[in-house]
Amino acid sequence: MSTTITGVTARDIRFPTSREHIGSDAMHPDPDYSCVYVVLRTSQPGLEGHGLTFTIGRGNEVCLAAVNALAPLVRGRTLEEICDGMAAFWRSLTSESQLRWIGPEKGALHLATAALVNAVWDLYAKAEGKPVWKLLADMEPAQIVSLIDFRYLTDALTPDEALEILEANAPTRARREAELRRDGYPAYTTSAGWLGFSDRQLRQLCRDALAEGWSHFKIKVGADLADDLRRCTIIREEIGFDRKLMTDANQRWDVPEAIGWMKELARFQPHWIEEPTSPDDVLGHAAIARAIAPIGVATGEQCQNRVIFKQLMQAGAIQFCQIDSCRLGGVNEILAVLLLAKKFGIPVCPHAGGVGLCEYVQHLAIFDYIYVSASLENRIVEYVDHLHEHFENPVQMRNNRYVPPAAPGYGITMKPASLDAYEFPGGRAWQGS
Amino acid sequence: MSTTITGVTARDIRFPTSREHIGSDAMHPDPDYSCVYVVLRTSQPGLEGHGLTFTIGRGNEVCLAAVNALAPLVRGRTLEEICDGMAAFWRSLTSESQLRWIGPEKGALHLATAALVNAVWDLYAKAEGKPVWKLLADMEPAQIVSLIDFRYLTDALTPDEALEILEANAPTRARREAELRRDGYPAYTTSAGWLGFSDRQLRQLCRDALAEGWSHFKIKVGADLADDLRRCTIIREEIGFDRKLMTDANQRWDVPEAIGWMKELARFQPHWIEEPTSPDDVLGHAAIARAIAPIGVATGEQCQNRVIFKQLMQAGAIQFCQIDSCRLGGVNEILAVLLLAKKFGIPVCPHAGGVGLCEYVQHLAIFDYIYVSASLENRIVEYVDHLHEHFENPVQMRNNRYVPPAAPGYGITMKPASLDAYEFPGGRAWQGS
Repeated sequence: MSTTITGVTARDIRFPTSREHIGSDAMHPDPDYSCVYVVLRTSQPGLEGHGLTFTIGRGNEVCLAAVNALAPLVRGRTLEEICDGMAAFWRSLTSESQLRWIGPEKGALHLATAALVNAVWDLYAKAEGKPVWKLLADMEPAQIVSLIDFRYLTDALTPDEALEILEANAPTRARREAELRRDGYPAYTTSAGWLGFSDRQLRQLCRDALAEGWSHFKIKVGADLADDLRRCTIIREEIGFDRKLMTDANQRWDVPEAIGWMKELARFQPHWIEEPTSPDDVLGHAAIARAIAPIGVATGEQCQNRVIFKQLMQAGAIQFCQIDSCRLGGVNEILAVLLLAKKFGIPVCPHAGGVGLCEYVQHLAIFDYIYVSASLENRIVEYVDHLHEHFENPVQMRNNRYVPPAAPGYGITMKPASLDAYEFPGGRAWQGS
Repeated sequence: MSTTITGVTARDIRFPTSREHIGSDAMHPDPDYSCVYVVLRTSQPGLEGHGLTFTIGRGNEVCLAAVNALAPLVRGRTLEEICDGMAAFWRSLTSESQLRWIGPEKGALHLATAALVNAVWDLYAKAEGKPVWKLLADMEPAQIVSLIDFRYLTDALTPDEALEILEANAPTRARREAELRRDGYPAYTTSAGWLGFSDRQLRQLCRDALAEGWSHFKIKVGADLADDLRRCTIIREEIGFDRKLMTDANQRWDVPEAIGWMKELARFQPHWIEEPTSPDDVLGHAAIARAIAPIGVATGEQCQNRVIFKQLMQAGAIQFCQIDSCRLGGVNEILAVLLLAKKFGIPVCPHAGGVGLCEYVQHLAIFDYIYVSASLENRIVEYVDHLHEHFENPVQMRNNRYVPPAAPGYGITMKPASLDAYEFPGGRAWQGS
């Protein structure tokens, strides 16, 4: 019996996080972590697909409009038909003949694509009774290749090359799955380093994180050099030089400025500089990477699609690839980037935090290790301990590592009471604001 | 007495052009030329700023939502305050701390930015009683430089370099202005080559265009090689080899495919191949350009912002720069790209057609010649004879050249009756559809 997607609903959900300066950085001083929350209803009683795309407040309604524009391409299809031709389904969303003009494959439209595609994957995985990472890990190599639209990729990665990567890892994947079930996937915390916190808070947060056993620490930089020097000094005083310090400029700099600034911060031995400049600037990142080595360059949370990631890798512009589960067009496009990263030897360290991103990216990182990278070297997933209480099956950490989720689906189903309370502008959380 | 922007209204306007296959190409078989039409009302009786952003139908409502999201950043400001700090005004739109997440500077949000910024320029020019090109041509070099946000550009173009370009041309600009008033700016026609036309129509359209004196012809390619070979043969039979033939693939190909296909079409001696692959693929365009020289590579109508154009030029990826008046974030960002193109020696050949794009880009090309490029070599503006009847001051052609517009403003004011008839979905043109 086939499963028809009978309805697509989307809601504007916003958390007023800016009231506490949570998530503040050089370019985004006041984010209100938000999402467009999508539910696919089906002809099967009790079977729904849930998905979201993440934003930081204003503009969430634009993504909502984009989800509604794409919804007719999903409504009325059967899950079986979608799964039989996933790459074609994905392209039908990203290449819709009129809609693509307002992208293509970027910005609000692509964020909306992610919400819908991820909801389809949630539905697919729930129908199969598996978490998304396990659904993927159990597929044959050729089936995984068939999920990917290789348009604009074949100069860097062909379907045959992708197949070769997957086939090489398939025989040993059970061993890595068992390892992750036992040990979890390594993580780092960004909770300490937001710009909005005082020096005293920063020092205390470092101590708290150390006491909790974290080994990697990230700090936001780029607004003021003197501040950065002082804050980096505090962090190194607290964490020493054996632990890793990551820096994050959130696109604040031009290329020459990034190079000059990082030469000043080099004394703190940063592991990487994240988002030194425009996420669109492949050649700029490459110039920075050449100038500041051995400090690595990391970017990705605002890299619009696989074409940008492809070039970042072709140009040697990044040493760390930070995929985002909602910026790229959902699972299918992320698979392409994981395979590209494997081919180019770049570790994938997913962006998380926000709302729901930790819940999402754990599936991707776990699958990456089991089936694509087959390595944990220099790989670590961002973790922020915030807003997880709104999810039915929130992310589980053990010894500061992500525990592979067990619940069927993509792990993003939010509690109905949270959806009602934080719906914008009518929810209780927004009353009187 | 200051001019306050008291209101911002935006309307969803769509023309059902897909019913006649107008504008059809390999990726967009059925465009309905559309726009979000913005009016800035002011405290001065009778003084308004009109602007639009162009789309091809579905998704126009998403851009409308984006305009409404940006509108509070414009409403309540005075024109004087905006003009005193234009670069800062522009950055206040493109770097709004929450909205930028759904771009940044790309897609629906950046298209919306263009509509608003262009409306401000219309208002500014109307207040000064000049067409936009003349308003710019009369400015001092330093004032023009002050209009530009150089963020993410300084590794390729500094404010001092921009000033130097403008100062070199300032003394002779009156001569070029007089020349354009006398002769107009050269144009080419795309009316003949849409994919949806039959061979017979194509041959007839070539003959018509030849009879009208056109010297450059553009044809859409990329859907089927046999079709392209046949259609190029027809065109060359009709126009001979003295006239220029441009080809346009509208992003249909991967990099290796583009190279192979253009080697087949090389026998027709194309002047350029436009949009051979993804507009995001700087390195891909560079590889294509190297492989198919002396055929030039052209792109731009879907290049999202100045950062992509900067890289296309740095990488030697384009031989022709096709700015779009609504894809880039309005006049201010276009000035940056014109100056980049001058520095890198790339001719600018603006994209036009659609609805209102010819009306817009004539100002930009005319200014470019007068003040930046100071050359007409290899420079030509697209022209499509379509939908001009809806404008109060439609573009004027003389001997197939653009006549510098005389009316104050940016030339985009549409007739109220047209706005009412084509408003979507309530207008008369959409009844019963």
